[in-house]
Amino acid sequence: MAKRSFPLSQVYGLLEPGPVVMVTTARKGRANVMTMSWHTMIDFEPPIMGCVVSNRNYTFGILKSTKECVINIPTVELATKAVACGNASGRRIDKFQAFGLTPSPASRVAAPLIDECYVSLECKVVDTGMVPKYCFFILEVVKAWIDRSRKRPRTIHHLGRGTFMVAGRTIRLPSRMR
Amino acid sequence: MAKRSFPLSQVYGLLEPGPVVMVTTARKGRANVMTMSWHTMIDFEPPIMGCVVSNRNYTFGILKSTKECVINIPTVELATKAVACGNASGRRIDKFQAFGLTPSPASRVAAPLIDECYVSLECKVVDTGMVPKYCFFILEVVKAWIDRSRKRPRTIHHLGRGTFMVAGRTIRLPSRMR
Repeated sequence: MAKRSFPLSQVYGLLEPGPVVMVTTARKGRANVMTMSWHTMIDFEPPIMGCVVSNRNYTFGILKSTKECVINIPTVELATKAVACGNASGRRIDKFQAFGLTPSPASRVAAPLIDECYVSLECKVVDTGMVPKYCFFILEVVKAWIDRSRKRPRTIHHLGRGTFMVAGRTIRLPSRMR
Repeated sequence: MAKRSFPLSQVYGLLEPGPVVMVTTARKGRANVMTMSWHTMIDFEPPIMGCVVSNRNYTFGILKSTKECVINIPTVELATKAVACGNASGRRIDKFQAFGLTPSPASRVAAPLIDECYVSLECKVVDTGMVPKYCFFILEVVKAWIDRSRKRPRTIHHLGRGTFMVAGRTIRLPSRMR
């Protein structure tokens, strides 16, 4: 794996644009992955994010009990596998094996990094106050990994019903916003 | 304005990809607009979303007291104005006037639609439980407007520090996900 650790202060710039992410969890030595795009940044540093994981998903119970996950960001090359993970349940299959994804040990959590994703963010659940009402988990990113050799990572962004926008060109504007 | 009402069930597909949005509010007949991209969908229908509005922003107090806003989605043609709105405070200037934005009356809230944005979502604040801790507001979209004549609306997605990704091509994959 070509990923290297990078500063937590830079995490927001990877999540704020709204990419589809692949969330890994693990319980009793068995890892799972789900696809998700209902997430937002909540604070810069330490990086706090929020995300919705439906209580119909297998991941919901694991996340609630282990309070750990990894948020992995795929690029367009992985789009077919990301969709496949979204269409299957970890209750029935091992998605890493079924879809040819490579788990790699994390440093701070039991859930694995996905080797094929260019970014992996190790997270701890820090607040479950909104879970009963909205299935909304508050996560703190505790360790961040990126493959800097990926020069133009084309993230995917879900438009609904199997349609995705692929990240296009980048523009710069004079801004005082962080 | 070429915008027409569209079904609330379709709102998620416009916010889920993570575009920069322009949030309008109004108090005592005076409208304001701020730029924001820390938001997420929370439920499909009625469409519930969550967003972070910092308590350092002029909009924070207005949103908290009026419990109403409009979430407007700009395209790349408006990027310079969106950044300008993010760099200025409504405490000091009328941003509609300063940046040449056209307010248009909403149907369900006092905050105006921004004519130049291709989508406008009228919202009511429905839960402020997470505001003290995270400045996180829960909004329900109560009326949705779109300009369907915009064939390829290129949304912008904030990468941090004045850098934006412009929405690229669209791909379709066989998916059972809504």
